[in-house]
Amino acid sequence: MRKVQGGVTAAKGFSAMGVHAGIKKDQKNDMAMIYSRVPCIAAGTFTTNQVKAAPVLWDQKMIYETPYSQAVVCNSGVANACTGEEGMDYCSEMAEIAAEELGIKKNMVLVASTGVIGQQLPIDKIRHGIKMLAPKLRSDQEGGHLAAQAIMTTDTVPKEIAYSFQIGEHTVKIGGMCKGSGMIHPNMCTMLGFITTDINISKHLLYEALSSDVQDTYNMVSVDGDTSTNDTVLLLANGLAGNPKITEKNEDYERFVEALHAVNEFLCKKIAGDGEGATALFEVQVIGGESKEQAKTLAKSIVSSNLVKAMIYGHDANCGRILCAMGYSCARFNPSIVDIYFESRAGKLKIVENGIPTHYSEEKATKILSEQEVTAIADVKMGTCQATAWGCDLTHDYVSINADYRS
Amino acid sequence: MRKVQGGVTAAKGFSAMGVHAGIKKDQKNDMAMIYSRVPCIAAGTFTTNQVKAAPVLWDQKMIYETPYSQAVVCNSGVANACTGEEGMDYCSEMAEIAAEELGIKKNMVLVASTGVIGQQLPIDKIRHGIKMLAPKLRSDQEGGHLAAQAIMTTDTVPKEIAYSFQIGEHTVKIGGMCKGSGMIHPNMCTMLGFITTDINISKHLLYEALSSDVQDTYNMVSVDGDTSTNDTVLLLANGLAGNPKITEKNEDYERFVEALHAVNEFLCKKIAGDGEGATALFEVQVIGGESKEQAKTLAKSIVSSNLVKAMIYGHDANCGRILCAMGYSCARFNPSIVDIYFESRAGKLKIVENGIPTHYSEEKATKILSEQEVTAIADVKMGTCQATAWGCDLTHDYVSINADYRS
Repeated sequence: MRKVQGGVTAAKGFSAMGVHAGIKKDQKNDMAMIYSRVPCIAAGTFTTNQVKAAPVLWDQKMIYETPYSQAVVCNSGVANACTGEEGMDYCSEMAEIAAEELGIKKNMVLVASTGVIGQQLPIDKIRHGIKMLAPKLRSDQEGGHLAAQAIMTTDTVPKEIAYSFQIGEHTVKIGGMCKGSGMIHPNMCTMLGFITTDINISKHLLYEALSSDVQDTYNMVSVDGDTSTNDTVLLLANGLAGNPKITEKNEDYERFVEALHAVNEFLCKKIAGDGEGATALFEVQVIGGESKEQAKTLAKSIVSSNLVKAMIYGHDANCGRILCAMGYSCARFNPSIVDIYFESRAGKLKIVENGIPTHYSEEKATKILSEQEVTAIADVKMGTCQATAWGCDLTHDYVSINADYRS
Repeated sequence: MRKVQGGVTAAKGFSAMGVHAGIKKDQKNDMAMIYSRVPCIAAGTFTTNQVKAAPVLWDQKMIYETPYSQAVVCNSGVANACTGEEGMDYCSEMAEIAAEELGIKKNMVLVASTGVIGQQLPIDKIRHGIKMLAPKLRSDQEGGHLAAQAIMTTDTVPKEIAYSFQIGEHTVKIGGMCKGSGMIHPNMCTMLGFITTDINISKHLLYEALSSDVQDTYNMVSVDGDTSTNDTVLLLANGLAGNPKITEKNEDYERFVEALHAVNEFLCKKIAGDGEGATALFEVQVIGGESKEQAKTLAKSIVSSNLVKAMIYGHDANCGRILCAMGYSCARFNPSIVDIYFESRAGKLKIVENGIPTHYSEEKATKILSEQEVTAIADVKMGTCQATAWGCDLTHDYVSINADYRS
C-alpha cells in the first residue's frame, strides 16, 4: 500500500468539483459534487442523533433501497436540519436537479449539507450551483481539491488523502475527503466524509468494511462532545480497477480494509487537529486494557474532557485531570495502578506512576505539551487491549467561533 | 418557611471560622472549620468518580461507621486526590489535630479538601491553620461568612443561605454553604457543600432527605461536564431546635425537606451562575415529559452542551443546537413536535414550534439572551413530567482559568 496524490478523484472514473454558489456570505466555495462515470455500489454510516437532518434521511433511504449510486451533491453554509417537510422536499429537489444535469436517475444521487441548523436551503442558489458544477467536473487532483475546499465550514484546511494497493496485477485506489470542525463527537459515524474507490467488491462487504472501521476511527474523535444532526460518511466503489470481485473476507478484502483504515485514520486526525479553534492535535492511547471496549471508553472520556483539553491548550501537565476523566467514565479500572505518560516530538515523560504523580520536570512536561501533536498514554495494567482517540485542545478561539457562529 | 440571615451558623449551636493558613499563594483564606457544641447526626453524599480523593474516603467511613459527628475541617488550594496512602495519612492527621484542639474524638471530625489534584497536603500549614481556627470559632453570621469565603477556589463569590420554619412552637433553622466552580458535573452529589441544621431527626431520615434531594439539585448542575474526585455534600443536624424527634415521613418531615430543598436549590443556582468564567446563569426546563427521568436526561444534555453554552455567551439564539443536544441524549422523544422558548427578565419568546424555528425577532432574542439569568424551556409534549437543570455559559475566561490553573 502506498500513499498517492489527490483525494476523491484518485480512484479511476471519479471526477469532482467545487464552486461558489452564493450560500456563504463570503466568496468561499460552498457547493461540491462527486461523480463516477459508471454506477457505484455505496455504503454509508450516519449520525445516531435522533434529530436527523433531511439529507441524512435521504441518503439512508437511497443507500438501503437502491442498488447503485453515481453522484454526491453537497453544500456548506446551511445544514438542512430541523427543517421539517420543506427541508425533505428541498433535498429531493437537489437530487432531481443534479440527476437532470448529469443524465442519471434521481435515486442515484446522494446529498449532504453542513452549516447552520434550522434554516431552509436557498434552493435557487443550490440549483444554480448544481448547474455550474456538472459541466466543470474534473477527474484530476484539482477537481478533488476544489471539492474538498467547498465542503469546509469552520475548517481551516481541506482534508483529503489517497492510497493505492495491488490486487494481483490490478492497481486499486481509494481516496477520501472530509470536513470538521465543530459539533464533532461522532457516534456511528462522523460529520461529512466522502470516500471513493475503484475496487470491485460486493455491496455487503463494502458496508461491513465501512461500518466496522468507523468504530475505531470517526467514532473515536471528539472536538466538543456534541454529536451532530448531519454526521455522514459515504463510501462509493465503482469497480473500475478491474480486480476479480471481492465477495468474501479473503486477503484481498484485508488489503482493502487496511487501505480504507489508513484513509479514515488520516482524515480523523485531520478533523481532530483542525477542530474549531484548536492549536494542537491531542491523541490519547489507553494501553494494558482488559477489553477493547474498556480501553475505548477510557480514551474517549479523556479526550472529551473540557478540563483536560484546556490543560493541553495551556501546556500545563495537570495530570490529575486525566485520572479524574478516567474515573468518571463508565469503564472500571484500578486507579492505584495506573501509569500515565505524555509524549510528543519533544520527548516522552512518565507523569503518573501507580496512580500518584511522579517527580517529573515541569519544564520538560511543558516542552512536550507545547508541540502541535501531543499524546497522552494511560496504562491501566489489566490486560493487552488498547484503543486510540483523537481530539484537540479547548481554546479561546473555540469560544469565539461558537459564541457567534451565525453572523 | 422564611429566609433568614447567615449560612452554616444560622442554626442553633453551630459556629464556624475561616483563616489564611498559607496553602494558597495569595493572601486569601484557605481553611475553614464548622463546629457544633453538641454532637450531630450526619448524612453525606459523595462523588461517584472511581478516583475518590482521600477526604471522600475518610468521610464515607466516618459517616457510615460512627454515630455522631461534631466538626468539619476543610482546606482549599490542594484537593488531596491521587495522593495514595500518604494522602490518607494526612487526612487522618487533619482530623486528629482538629479533635485535639476541639476536645472531641477524632472520628467525630469530617474533613474536606478542594484544589489541585495530585499534590500532597502541606501538613504543617494545615496543622497551623487548625490551631488558628479552633479558638476563633464564632456562632454569628460573620463566622459562617468567613468559612464560606475560605472554601472558595475559582469561585468569585461566597455561596451561603439559611431558612427557618416552625415545627409546633419550635423554630427550626437550616443553613448551608458551598463552593464551585470548575470540574462541576456532579453525580450523586456535588463539589463541596456543607449544610447545618438544629432539627431533631433520625439519622436514617436525615440521609434519606439528603440523598433524595441531591438528585433534583446538585445532580442537575453542570459547569463543564467533569465530575470531580472530591464532590461532597455534608448535612449535620444537632437537634438543638428541641422539636419532637422526627422518626417518620410526616408533615414535619415534609417541612424539613422543603427547607432543605430551598437551601440546596439556592446553592446550586449560585454554583451554576458562578461557574468558572461564567457571565450568565443558564437554566433549562424540560416540560411535557413522559417521565421525570426523560425530562432530567434532556435538560442535563442541553445544559451540558459546549455549543449551547457558547451560544448563550454570544447571546445568539441558535436554536438548532438545543434540538441537537436533545437528540444525542439517551432520552427518546419526537423532534417534530418539540416547542422551545427562551425566557429572561427581558421577556419570553417561542423560537421553535413543532421542531422548526419560528420567525422570531432576532433582536428580541438577543435582548432576552443578554440578561444575567437566562432560561431555555423545551416542551416535548408527551406528558406532564418536568425537570430543571442549571449551568452557565462557556466563555473565554473559562478557557483562561483552566489553561493555566496551577500557576
